Amino acid sequence: MNYSNPFFKKNSKVKIEDILKLLKVKNIKIKNCKINDIKELEMAKSDDITFLNSSKYINIANNTKSKIIITHYKYKDLIKKKYSIIIVDNVFLAVAKVTELFYPDSSDDTYDNAVSIINQKKFKNLKLGKNVLIGKNVKIGKNCFIGHNSIIESNVKIGNSCKIGSNVIIKKSIIADNVNILDGSIVGKKGFGFFPGKKTNIRYPHIGMVIIEKNVEIGCNNTIDRGSLSNTIIGENSFLDNQVHIAHNVKIGKNCIIAGQVGFAGSSSLGDRVMIGGQAGISGHIKIGNNVQIGGGSGVIKNIPDNTKVMGYPAKNIRNFIKENKNE
Amino acid sequence: MNYSNPFFKKNSKVKIEDILKLLKVKNIKIKNCKINDIKELEMAKSDDITFLNSSKYINIANNTKSKIIITHYKYKDLIKKKYSIIIVDNVFLAVAKVTELFYPDSSDDTYDNAVSIINQKKFKNLKLGKNVLIGKNVKIGKNCFIGHNSIIESNVKIGNSCKIGSNVIIKKSIIADNVNILDGSIVGKKGFGFFPGKKTNIRYPHIGMVIIEKNVEIGCNNTIDRGSLSNTIIGENSFLDNQVHIAHNVKIGKNCIIAGQVGFAGSSSLGDRVMIGGQAGISGHIKIGNNVQIGGGSGVIKNIPDNTKVMGYPAKNIRNFIKENKNE
Amino acid sequence: MNYSNPFFKKNSKVKIEDILKLLKVKNIKIKNCKINDIKELEMAKSDDITFLNSSKYINIANNTKSKIIITHYKYKDLIKKKYSIIIVDNVFLAVAKVTELFYPDSSDDTYDNAVSIINQKKFKNLKLGKNVLIGKNVKIGKNCFIGHNSIIESNVKIGNSCKIGSNVIIKKSIIADNVNILDGSIVGKKGFGFFPGKKTNIRYPHIGMVIIEKNVEIGCNNTIDRGSLSNTIIGENSFLDNQVHIAHNVKIGKNCIIAGQVGFAGSSSLGDRVMIGGQAGISGHIKIGNNVQIGGGSGVIKNIPDNTKVMGYPAKNIRNFIKENKNE
Repeated sequence: MNYSNPFFKKNSKVKIEDILKLLKVKNIKIKNCKINDIKELEMAKSDDITFLNSSKYINIANNTKSKIIITHYKYKDLIKKKYSIIIVDNVFLAVAKVTELFYPDSSDDTYDNAVSIINQKKFKNLKLGKNVLIGKNVKIGKNCFIGHNSIIESNVKIGNSCKIGSNVIIKKSIIADNVNILDGSIVGKKGFGFFPGKKTNIRYPHIGMVIIEKNVEIGCNNTIDRGSLSNTIIGENSFLDNQVHIAHNVKIGKNCIIAGQVGFAGSSSLGDRVMIGGQAGISGHIKIGNNVQIGGGSGVIKNIPDNTKVMGYPAKNIRNFIKENKNE
Repeated sequence: MNYSNPFFKKNSKVKIEDILKLLKVKNIKIKNCKINDIKELEMAKSDDITFLNSSKYINIANNTKSKIIITHYKYKDLIKKKYSIIIVDNVFLAVAKVTELFYPDSSDDTYDNAVSIINQKKFKNLKLGKNVLIGKNVKIGKNCFIGHNSIIESNVKIGNSCKIGSNVIIKKSIIADNVNILDGSIVGKKGFGFFPGKKTNIRYPHIGMVIIEKNVEIGCNNTIDRGSLSNTIIGENSFLDNQVHIAHNVKIGKNCIIAGQVGFAGSSSLGDRVMIGGQAGISGHIKIGNNVQIGGGSGVIKNIPDNTKVMGYPAKNIRNFIKENKNE
Repeated sequence: MNYSNPFFKKNSKVKIEDILKLLKVKNIKIKNCKINDIKELEMAKSDDITFLNSSKYINIANNTKSKIIITHYKYKDLIKKKYSIIIVDNVFLAVAKVTELFYPDSSDDTYDNAVSIINQKKFKNLKLGKNVLIGKNVKIGKNCFIGHNSIIESNVKIGNSCKIGSNVIIKKSIIADNVNILDGSIVGKKGFGFFPGKKTNIRYPHIGMVIIEKNVEIGCNNTIDRGSLSNTIIGENSFLDNQVHIAHNVKIGKNCIIAGQVGFAGSSSLGDRVMIGGQAGISGHIKIGNNVQIGGGSGVIKNIPDNTKVMGYPAKNIRNFIKENKNE
């Protein structure tokens, strides 16, 4: 599941002065130089900038290859002197701003202006409906179908033998072989992440993608948002019914079955072979194990271990749910 | 928030005889004359018709400038002799019928036949996707984007720097500056209001609009219905996630955050800075105060005062919800 | 409600050898001959194949006109010797495979390639929006409206005075007079039925249709799936609000009112005059009687008798729901 991300054009001219100006940080002396990118502590290289927002990661911070760390005042003295430190009030907000400086088109979802009606002969045995719009550098495998009025934005990759319905919109996504995406679904929009502001909220940049593995089916009128820093992933051979909502950074395992109108808040993960009944909701940042069954209408607000059946709001072991409700 | 409504063409030839005939009212002597409009008691002028359906408003009725009041038999003797009274069995049904007589196109949502592909040079720095359809007398501010296949019906007003996604439909709506409406959303359709009938239901006319204030974001595949008599309003800088449903006459305050798949029944109102978790539902005619937090999956069936956190179905104070569920 | 189904082209060249090969059944001697169709026990004629998957139906099986029965080993000795028996591990999976052999296009929803922009003069007083795509052999009654970008796939029948919105997709459906289907709805897609497999799931063929009776209204962004073997039915004068999800084989009675974001799992049925509040969910294979009222947000997981009001999750008599929650 290691995919390169072709969707966000990086600003290659960012200098440390631009970052300091953006964050309104003064009284700091860092030699002006180009910065390559913003990365998490472990991923950052010597010409990247990085950030620390929890004392849990202080050891990692003190071994990062980056030379410049954005952090809060309270972590200042824990960081080795060899690093340059940029102190801000809100680390995530600063990271969002710097990320957007590097990836200016990552926080909004203006339509792709580069799409056009294409010549289907350009692709191998592609069947195209009417009015299909396809962006630049789109890759489409053999024997695919794309329905009427659908829009495949620039740089999207679609595998072999995929069937895309009508009125579908796909952006910032990589789709493996034999995937079906049914009518009216919207895949790859930025997630619902932002910093509330009194006058205007500040949108969180979303530089993640949507990865759809092979043999997946996405029902009608679904919304599957791309990730912010990591990717949103729908694992191999998982099937989603209609009107399902998958928020940013969610990871769905393999062979999952997700019924109609289920909703996921951001950054939750499912194991393999998870079954979820209709209209269930999964809170954010929840971990659900393998072979879990979640009853329809449940509200899952904490982690669920492997091989468990739950139901209820909040979701509890299904035996307890049945016992409590046996007289109803 | 005082907007004139350019959307519903008024029949200017309605006479009192037409109204009496429509309501099947006989044995009443009112000099035949033109009637200008149907209005609520306080708003009605001398050439409008009005209505009374509760003894609570009898004082207001006896001071209305209108000369003709539609009401039920039981209020007949409470109304001053100077007014002409039209007695009906079902006041709201009569009002609906008379409203539709004045505004014949207010109870259905047939597509706007006047739209066409337009010349984008007509608007200032407008970026248009493919196949965008725009009605007559549409106003669009500077620096806007409208995505592929979107439809902006006649008389809609869009402010400056707005970003409309692809496959969006907007009708009967006034949209302020810097508003984002993402892919697949439908804004301004009539609400789900009607009088059940044995053979055919009678649709309630919807002569309200949708007002979207500045800096708002509407997610993907939302449905936001216009008002019946009043307007549906989304307040300044409020953000809605995907698959949210807003029924007719709902008022959302400023700086609200509404997560995915939340639904509102008709005529409820939110204060400012309200946060609502995913899949929560708000019953009709509910008042929710300022600074309220509503947990995901909650079902709100009564009013909620300012500065309260609630969760559950039915929604209760979050402390009680946690206490009751601590052993699950 | 007896409709012939024009949507699935039957393979008329199926021989018993093809079926045995498909099911990997050997060591059985049936004289090779053409088979006409696969039918349920009571419906099958002498040249059809049929199936038995429960001892409850053994008497019916022993009177079927079909000569060949697909069944499980455990029912083998209960069936009269005059029938040829095909023994399989999973009867429903075998039925699905054979059904797909007869109806090869019944398990997926690839877009209809036969649609085109049509000449509206072909139909009587039809008002057509822009970019409407209409398939082959579509029948449309008098005085209909079809909005922009909508797609009516081949063989669909639409009655008189129907109003179809914009961005609507209709397939495998028969629609009576005076029906409204609002913007963005998708009607007639296959249901969410399949056999989970380790590598790839096997889709259940859906040879049912969607039947929409007269005077019905379907709101915006609804998804109404067609049936698998039986039809999905929306009864006369029933109204559905926005974002409603109706799964395969669901039967909705007459004069029902279904509010926003309600969801039905497969094969449930409603009586007449049923009212369902917003976001309620109905489990699969549930029977709900006449004159039932279901409160908003309820989760219905068992049958409900006539003339009952329920609310809650799980749904219970509304008096109990109110009593239990009176102190909240």
